[in-house]
Amino acid sequence: MKGVFYGVGVGPGDPELITLKGYRVLREADVICSPKSRAEKEGIALSIVRSLLDIKQKVLELTFPMTNDKVELELYWDKAVRQILSLLKEGKKVAFITLGDPSLYSTYTYVLKKIKQAGSYPVETIPGVASFCACAAAANIPLAEGDEKLAIIPAVKDLDPLRLVLQNFENVVLMKIARNYPAVVKILAELGLKDQAIYASRCGMPDGFLKAGLPTLPEEMEELEEVQKDYLSLIIVKRSNYV
Amino acid sequence: MKGVFYGVGVGPGDPELITLKGYRVLREADVICSPKSRAEKEGIALSIVRSLLDIKQKVLELTFPMTNDKVELELYWDKAVRQILSLLKEGKKVAFITLGDPSLYSTYTYVLKKIKQAGSYPVETIPGVASFCACAAAANIPLAEGDEKLAIIPAVKDLDPLRLVLQNFENVVLMKIARNYPAVVKILAELGLKDQAIYASRCGMPDGFLKAGLPTLPEEMEELEEVQKDYLSLIIVKRSNYV
Repeated sequence: MKGVFYGVGVGPGDPELITLKGYRVLREADVICSPKSRAEKEGIALSIVRSLLDIKQKVLELTFPMTNDKVELELYWDKAVRQILSLLKEGKKVAFITLGDPSLYSTYTYVLKKIKQAGSYPVETIPGVASFCACAAAANIPLAEGDEKLAIIPAVKDLDPLRLVLQNFENVVLMKIARNYPAVVKILAELGLKDQAIYASRCGMPDGFLKAGLPTLPEEMEELEEVQKDYLSLIIVKRSNYV
Repeated sequence: MKGVFYGVGVGPGDPELITLKGYRVLREADVICSPKSRAEKEGIALSIVRSLLDIKQKVLELTFPMTNDKVELELYWDKAVRQILSLLKEGKKVAFITLGDPSLYSTYTYVLKKIKQAGSYPVETIPGVASFCACAAAANIPLAEGDEKLAIIPAVKDLDPLRLVLQNFENVVLMKIARNYPAVVKILAELGLKDQAIYASRCGMPDGFLKAGLPTLPEEMEELEEVQKDYLSLIIVKRSNYV
């Protein structure tokens, strides 16, 4: 038996939004790898899996610090890859779980690259429902229609390119919006797009939050004060004025 | 009993890529609405559902012609909405199935708008795995990492904006690429991005096709001659040179 490495997207939060394939692969896996930040007690993806499965498999928790320090991250990726390769060598089916879709802004892709480089173990990525698809669905709005373009922008550091994107794309998703929420809302207000936006946080989770139209700073945004701090938050901007 | 209208994304082609929720909603539905083009014998989404379920529910086939003529389309949307509303009035659970994710370039969103306008029936959209997520997964590559942006561009008519997007986005997905494939490949070649692209057609279906690097026109593209004609084809361009 040769080991196999799987990346499994468990979806955006609601356990029922995992695919049949992801669910099957998790049931058949020997080991479930669960990424988590240093601060977390348990990874969110693992808690989703727990509510689906009575986990009898070995769980390998892999810590990845929330940092942009590439040198530090490399150390953690390498350590995770060594542990995974050792399991693959034993012939184990190893499933690395990840929130949303594994190909979108996931630690999985860094680990995958190193697993591919390291050896000849087969790898299979099981796609998942992306967070922005789930948020649009929860709001019953289209993300993009007909000839419209869609831009996905992660936690923006340099806000200048954002203006250009907002002016040229009919639909924009701003991911991981917590850190720079006030600055982004200011730009949206300047461009007259504040009321054509939806704010979503932890969409599909029990404490999920969804709001059409963004409150003006600072008076109206009390309600958002808490939720906007969440890492799993995004804004969908629709220039077509659908919201 | 009040009728409920569901939009169910059945995923990109592989029947196992439907969500647990989508699968449950389809089993519990009274009527399954299946969109199809005039040319199709049966919609692709319905054939995916057939391979999952022994369909005992009523199937309502809804024809939407492949045209950009808004006036003609309105007639077909209105006809579909009338039929759906009549079922909702009877208290039926009506599930409108759609390939991939319902919020992305789906006829569902036009029908949804009119259902919402027409009455007070509850609607629920069940998100699905987007085709581009499935293609990236099949190729075991990331769609976007870290601070990278991702642009989703549908069947491009005006190719000028495409150059700008390709120069400013680290990752670009070109959807429904069949019609203008040669022109798009020419632009990619000019920008030196031809070898950093993946071409995928009917990803996850039995006749699916995936190829890293785009053949130069016209000598090397014989293999693509057939597949490129397919409506369900896309190109993923990665400027980070990952492919």
